[in-house]
Amino acid sequence: MRIDLNADLGEGHGRWELGDDQALLSVVTSANVACGFHAGDPTVLRRTTRDAADRGVAVGAHVGYRDLTGFGRRFIDMPPGELADDVLYQLGALSAFTGTAGDRVRYVKPHGALYNAIVHHTDQAGAVVEAVRSFDPDLPVLGLPGSEFLRLAERAGLPTHREAFADRAYTPEGTLVSRREPGAVLHDPDRIAERCLRIARGEPVTAIDGSEIRIGADSLCVHGDSPGAVAIARTVADKLRAEGVALAAFTA
Amino acid sequence: MRIDLNADLGEGHGRWELGDDQALLSVVTSANVACGFHAGDPTVLRRTTRDAADRGVAVGAHVGYRDLTGFGRRFIDMPPGELADDVLYQLGALSAFTGTAGDRVRYVKPHGALYNAIVHHTDQAGAVVEAVRSFDPDLPVLGLPGSEFLRLAERAGLPTHREAFADRAYTPEGTLVSRREPGAVLHDPDRIAERCLRIARGEPVTAIDGSEIRIGADSLCVHGDSPGAVAIARTVADKLRAEGVALAAFTA
Amino acid sequence: MRIDLNADLGEGHGRWELGDDQALLSVVTSANVACGFHAGDPTVLRRTTRDAADRGVAVGAHVGYRDLTGFGRRFIDMPPGELADDVLYQLGALSAFTGTAGDRVRYVKPHGALYNAIVHHTDQAGAVVEAVRSFDPDLPVLGLPGSEFLRLAERAGLPTHREAFADRAYTPEGTLVSRREPGAVLHDPDRIAERCLRIARGEPVTAIDGSEIRIGADSLCVHGDSPGAVAIARTVADKLRAEGVALAAFTA
Amino acid sequence: MRIDLNADLGEGHGRWELGDDQALLSVVTSANVACGFHAGDPTVLRRTTRDAADRGVAVGAHVGYRDLTGFGRRFIDMPPGELADDVLYQLGALSAFTGTAGDRVRYVKPHGALYNAIVHHTDQAGAVVEAVRSFDPDLPVLGLPGSEFLRLAERAGLPTHREAFADRAYTPEGTLVSRREPGAVLHDPDRIAERCLRIARGEPVTAIDGSEIRIGADSLCVHGDSPGAVAIARTVADKLRAEGVALAAFTA
Repeated sequence: MRIDLNADLGEGHGRWELGDDQALLSVVTSANVACGFHAGDPTVLRRTTRDAADRGVAVGAHVGYRDLTGFGRRFIDMPPGELADDVLYQLGALSAFTGTAGDRVRYVKPHGALYNAIVHHTDQAGAVVEAVRSFDPDLPVLGLPGSEFLRLAERAGLPTHREAFADRAYTPEGTLVSRREPGAVLHDPDRIAERCLRIARGEPVTAIDGSEIRIGADSLCVHGDSPGAVAIARTVADKLRAEGVALAAFTA
Repeated sequence: MRIDLNADLGEGHGRWELGDDQALLSVVTSANVACGFHAGDPTVLRRTTRDAADRGVAVGAHVGYRDLTGFGRRFIDMPPGELADDVLYQLGALSAFTGTAGDRVRYVKPHGALYNAIVHHTDQAGAVVEAVRSFDPDLPVLGLPGSEFLRLAERAGLPTHREAFADRAYTPEGTLVSRREPGAVLHDPDRIAERCLRIARGEPVTAIDGSEIRIGADSLCVHGDSPGAVAIARTVADKLRAEGVALAAFTA
Repeated sequence: MRIDLNADLGEGHGRWELGDDQALLSVVTSANVACGFHAGDPTVLRRTTRDAADRGVAVGAHVGYRDLTGFGRRFIDMPPGELADDVLYQLGALSAFTGTAGDRVRYVKPHGALYNAIVHHTDQAGAVVEAVRSFDPDLPVLGLPGSEFLRLAERAGLPTHREAFADRAYTPEGTLVSRREPGAVLHDPDRIAERCLRIARGEPVTAIDGSEIRIGADSLCVHGDSPGAVAIARTVADKLRAEGVALAAFTA
Repeated sequence: MRIDLNADLGEGHGRWELGDDQALLSVVTSANVACGFHAGDPTVLRRTTRDAADRGVAVGAHVGYRDLTGFGRRFIDMPPGELADDVLYQLGALSAFTGTAGDRVRYVKPHGALYNAIVHHTDQAGAVVEAVRSFDPDLPVLGLPGSEFLRLAERAGLPTHREAFADRAYTPEGTLVSRREPGAVLHDPDRIAERCLRIARGEPVTAIDGSEIRIGADSLCVHGDSPGAVAIARTVADKLRAEGVALAAFTA
């Protein structure tokens, strides 16, 4: 039994730092690396891809809207053609750095508002898929189960992988409870780790209404932008290994 | 006998257009394509690389400082490591687009203030060389004869090529007359074409003081950011061909 | 009888130019000046505000989303508080330039996707209103009749002014026909000028379905981003004056 | 006897935070507020100017080069006219926020590479002076004693004020020891506080070579971008007050 742990990395920019990348790299098996449009800059990309390569962590392209000021968290209603071009540009840029680190981009995971938009926004989902396919028709994508993004990626022949969120509550339908709702985010490390173990084993977990649901996932998303978040990620990793679940990149 | 004609292309950004790329693509054999830092955007990159591929024009990476507002024409005193990262980022980004156009980046030519800086600025010249070498140790560079850039590129084992400027006056030492001096820029198409022919043939041309100098060049740089400039480029191309000089990319 | 003619100006950025500002300034009575977020840069602002002051043309703040690459034409789903801050920032910046030109910002007109969004988007409309009010509670705003923007501006006590579009077709309900529909944009200068005259006189004009509607307007928006557009603006101005309609800034 | 304590504030941008503004505002009497070009964004400007107003801390415009990625720490060789426009733009933008906070911009202090450049770069120093003068001919400026900036500002009739750096070593000539030299930055809070007290009293302090020099200063610059820095600032403030030196904005 095995599962992947993924987290967002390389989210600084210039003078500004964010998150504890070194700590996260010692925990996760896949790193979603910002590509410079919503976070990251060329120097951060070089450092992050090299550090990930040194640790054997798989690098994914964390592509986002061109919006440093908004950190890619604001939906931009842009033409699909322009979005595809923006994604391709980011893939190429990151790829130059994984290349000099002796590796390559292993997968693509959209970031922030783009991630959320392409759960339902068919045109933008198709744009991301088209960009990935034109860059490399065998490049895996990581996304939300049931999303337009994964549906279109599958149809385009891209390898698709599903992720679950370690610290988020789920609806009875298996979708994420909105962050605006009470109880949407879990905080207890042990409860989160237990839940992750159940997901990794394919066992049902408790939805926000108390019902039992099954969440199919190839990867668990953990966070690292606060000291508490890194501690949770570590607790999850320790628990999984202690219970005999191997941690390995889903692209391995 | 043969020579290359190169020009800057893809210098629009978003709503803003600059130069007549279609006209230039029908004249030149090498296109210096802006990579999004001083000009260009992902959609412009896609269009320009595809159009160049359709016409059989070689695409070079026109890398510049991160400075859209200054169009890359302002020297930025940045650490060499950061500059190398910026250049590598641009190479990767452009490369994704040449790739989808069924081609690849054929050479690198720095733009604007970066071009001028690395004539003498050893650290920044070394940074550009290091970025190119780490991206592809066989990727040719195009630059000013006698520059630090070409000297360091040669030492790093990169194929180096020299360019001459069709419409610029030269000093007796074979360097460019500063644009601030009278007579620095030539305007007469026939005189420019005649001069280009002499350079292509390896014959001496007249420097600004009336002396005769030899300018070794593998490529002639023409401009296209005004209707007159395109006409000059066309006159040069016609003259060269009429006199039996083949026009071909220096990377061919 | 009098009316205002307004147009977008100062839409270049750095090396890039757009539209013929000098020609437009000889025609219009109000200039919507880009503030650097979707177009314009500090040097363009200085030049445009000074030229407008020299010609006695009223300067309005053409505030937009922070999106140079998209020219402010892409809706950004941003929190109202951040939008209010962005608008206030632009108002302050433009104000420094009108100040050195011996004048001041006379009105506010949102640009592009923001203009369109706040026809219906109550939260973003409220954010723009709040920004204007906090900057100067007596500063007039210019917008689409019937928009949330004008409704909320009026409620906040701001002087409100309505504009009509010289070259756009209207629905029987008095709203703009979408640019995606055939016939949405008018091209015949004489027909456009005649239509503007009727609007200025308060007479009904023909909607796209042939019905007659009345469009109340304090200002007519003309365009200048193509040679044809400037010619149309000139035809409109000449026609209005010839028929005894005075052209004067609505803020005069 | 009295002196001013100034520090850089509002240096976050979007998702990124930097320094502990709340802690600093409880210590300093003048806040150099980033204006969005090298750091800060409109929302940060609003928050910082309001917090400063609430605490009675004087707000200065911390104007810098347009370079978020480089945090304004890279010299940009730009034309003086463009620099003056960039500075004026920032002054206007910040001014809108101090205005809504019921206050106004009290002084101007250039940031980072611009601060360093205009110690010697006459053209750029003149550009900053011209921008300040055109915005408000009575607006004070804060700078390095002996700099071109203060010399030209004085000649232009602007009120000028000199600052000393609490934690930096000085040469026998009274200039700052380069950060690249050993001993350039002081770390011991008590020694720094003692030194600040001597400067406030107009007493000589020890230069890096052991000689005694006098540093005339109207304001002491303290830092706040690390927990240790804030502690130092607090120690300085406590020491000065304990010894009977009043802390008050130099613009008060």
